[in-house]
Amino acid sequence: MASGASSSSSPARPSDPDVAVVAVDCNGADLGPAEVAAGAAIAAEQGARVILFGPAGELGGPRPGVEVVDAPVSIAKNRDPASAVRAYPDASIVQAARAVAGDRAQALVCAGGTGAALAAGLFNIKRIRGIYRPALAIPLPVPGRPVTLLDVGANAVVRREHLVQFAFMGAALSSTVLGVERPRVGLLSNGEEEGRGSPLVLEAHAELAQRTSASIDAFEFVGNVEGGDVMSGVADVVVTDGFTGNIALKLMEAVSQTILAAVRDAATSSTRGKLGGALLRGALGGFRAEIDPERQGGAYLLGLRRLGVVPHGRFSRTGFAQAILRAERGAREDIVGQTERALARAGALREAPVSASGASLRDIE
Amino acid sequence: MASGASSSSSPARPSDPDVAVVAVDCNGADLGPAEVAAGAAIAAEQGARVILFGPAGELGGPRPGVEVVDAPVSIAKNRDPASAVRAYPDASIVQAARAVAGDRAQALVCAGGTGAALAAGLFNIKRIRGIYRPALAIPLPVPGRPVTLLDVGANAVVRREHLVQFAFMGAALSSTVLGVERPRVGLLSNGEEEGRGSPLVLEAHAELAQRTSASIDAFEFVGNVEGGDVMSGVADVVVTDGFTGNIALKLMEAVSQTILAAVRDAATSSTRGKLGGALLRGALGGFRAEIDPERQGGAYLLGLRRLGVVPHGRFSRTGFAQAILRAERGAREDIVGQTERALARAGALREAPVSASGASLRDIE
Repeated sequence: MASGASSSSSPARPSDPDVAVVAVDCNGADLGPAEVAAGAAIAAEQGARVILFGPAGELGGPRPGVEVVDAPVSIAKNRDPASAVRAYPDASIVQAARAVAGDRAQALVCAGGTGAALAAGLFNIKRIRGIYRPALAIPLPVPGRPVTLLDVGANAVVRREHLVQFAFMGAALSSTVLGVERPRVGLLSNGEEEGRGSPLVLEAHAELAQRTSASIDAFEFVGNVEGGDVMSGVADVVVTDGFTGNIALKLMEAVSQTILAAVRDAATSSTRGKLGGALLRGALGGFRAEIDPERQGGAYLLGLRRLGVVPHGRFSRTGFAQAILRAERGAREDIVGQTERALARAGALREAPVSASGASLRDIE
Repeated sequence: MASGASSSSSPARPSDPDVAVVAVDCNGADLGPAEVAAGAAIAAEQGARVILFGPAGELGGPRPGVEVVDAPVSIAKNRDPASAVRAYPDASIVQAARAVAGDRAQALVCAGGTGAALAAGLFNIKRIRGIYRPALAIPLPVPGRPVTLLDVGANAVVRREHLVQFAFMGAALSSTVLGVERPRVGLLSNGEEEGRGSPLVLEAHAELAQRTSASIDAFEFVGNVEGGDVMSGVADVVVTDGFTGNIALKLMEAVSQTILAAVRDAATSSTRGKLGGALLRGALGGFRAEIDPERQGGAYLLGLRRLGVVPHGRFSRTGFAQAILRAERGAREDIVGQTERALARAGALREAPVSASGASLRDIE
C-alpha cells in the first residue's frame, strides 16, 4: 500500500454530528503500532471512529469504525521534533495532525511522544489565538476526587504568563470534563506560604492572587500547594511548569507501583500472607484499577485549536483505547471551545496575535 | 531560669571522644518543644549526649545525658530567617548553632524549619571553605537500596556549579553513611535523554559528563534520571534543585501514605477484608516501618563545617530521637570531613574563599 493511501470498512467521518473522529499516530508505542491498532479496535467497538496513521502492514485489516492510512515514517524517537516535523512531512504524526487540521478528524492521539505531538500540532493544528503555549494536563486518579495537574511535560521552561494561562486552561478542563464548579487552583511550590517558591512561582502567585481579588469566576486561587498536598484535596487543579510536573507525575506513578508491589510481595511471602492477600484481592483490586494510569488514557494536550491526547508510550491496548475514547469525548464536550471562552472572559488571552510557529518551536523538547 | 542558663545531670561534653554531642533546637515542632525533649530522652537512653535549646519550663527535668539551655525565643516560623537570625541572637536555633560553632557540640538538630537552621548555620557554623551552598540530603527509604536525594529544600534557586557540588556532596554521604562504593549519581530531569531538561539541567549534565570522562573516582555519573526512576535503582544519588527536590520528597511521602491508607481501608471494609488485613499485618507492618519517614530521622544538612540534621516539624518523639541519633552517628563518622576531602580531591571546591554571610544569605528561604 502506498504511503498515504487509505482503506476503510466504513466512512470515518460519521453522519452523526455527535460522534467525533480521532486521528491516531500509531508509531512510537513501546509495544509497537499493532498494539495501538488493537486499542483502536476496542475503542471502535465502544462507538469511536478512528483513523490510524502508521505502517499499514502492522495495523491489521480494516475494521468497522477504523480507517487505516499507511504512514510508516516515524519521528517518535527524534531528538529534535520541531526539525523532524519540517523534514518529514509524511511522518505519521504529521499526517495525523494534518487530518485534524483539515477537519477529517476532530481530535489527535499520539502514541509516539509529547515532543512530536506538540511540534506537529503547533505546525498544523495551530494554537488557539491568544494562547502562549500548549500544556499537557492530566486528571490524577486520586480516589474520590480527581485533581488536574498541568503542565506535565509540554514546556520544560515557562514564564509567569504561561503559568497564569495554565491555571485557566486547567480550570476549564476541570469544570468541563470533571464537572467541578469553580475549581480551586493551586500553584505547586516548595512551601505553602505566599513567599515560598522559585522567582517564577512568586511572580505567578502575585498575578493569580491579584486576578482572584478581581473576582474572576473561572476559578478560585488557593495559593501555593506543596508536594504533599497535591492529592490532599486542597486544590482541584495544580499548576506547575512542565519540568516539575513531568517529574511529579512520573514519581507518583512509580511510588504507587512500588507500594502496591510491596503489598503484593507481602501477600505472597507466606501461606498466611497468601491467604490474607486472597481475602483482600477484591477490595484492593478496585483501588488498583482506579489508580491505574492505563485506565485514565493519558494527558490532554490543551491550547491547540483541536484537542490532543497523549497516552504513555508504554501503554497496552487498554490504555490506547482509553486515550482514543478520552479524545473522542473531549472533542464532543468541546474542551477547546470551553477553554478559549474561559480565557477570553477572564481577559487572559494574549492580545497580540501569536505566530503559530517560529519562536515557540525553539523551546519544544 | 534565666535565658542561656544551663542545667545538666551529666557533663554534656563526653570524655569519650567517640561520642559526639548534639545541640538540639526544640522550638518549631508541630507537637511542641516537649515532644522534641521526649525524643532527646529516647536518644540519650541509646547513648547520645544532647544539649536542648528551648523553653526550659516545657522541656522536663534534667535527664542523664541531656543538658537543657533555657532559650524560649523562637524564630522557627519567621518568614525571613536570615534577618531573624541577626535580629534575635538569643533565639534557640542561634544559640544551638553557636554551641556547635564553639565546639560545645559537634552536630546540630533543628526541629524548627530548614530556613532557620540554614541561616543560623551559615552565620555561626559557617560553610566549608569552597562550598557554594549547603544542601539538604535525604536517604530515601527505598526498600532494599537507599537512594540519596538532594537538595530537598535548602535552595529554591541554584546554579550549575551548585548542582555539580551537590553531586559530590551526595556521593560522599552515600559512601560514608550508606556504604555505597563509587555511587552512581543521576540528575533529576523530565526525560532520560541527554538533551532533555531545563537549561540548568543541561548545563550541569554537560559538566558532570565531562568530569566523569576525566575519570573522577568519587562517583559514576549515570546521566539524567526521570521521576519514575528515582526509586528504580538506576542511581544511588539523585541530584536536583531544592524547589524540585522538596516537591518530589513531599509527593513521595504523600503518595506512600495515600496508598497505604487505601490498603488499610480495603482491610477494614468487610469481614473478609478484615481477616485478610489481619493475616497480612505482619508482613505489611515491616514494610510500613521501613518506609516511615520518622524512622529515617530527617535530612542531612551538608556543606557547613559541622553536620546538621533537619527532621520534619511534624515528627513525634520517635522521629526526633532518630534525628539526634543520625546527627550523632554522622558526626562520629565525620561526614563533613569526608565530603570536604571528596570535593578537594576532585577539584570541585570553589577556589576563591567564600564569604560565610552576605550574598548567599539573600537567597535563603
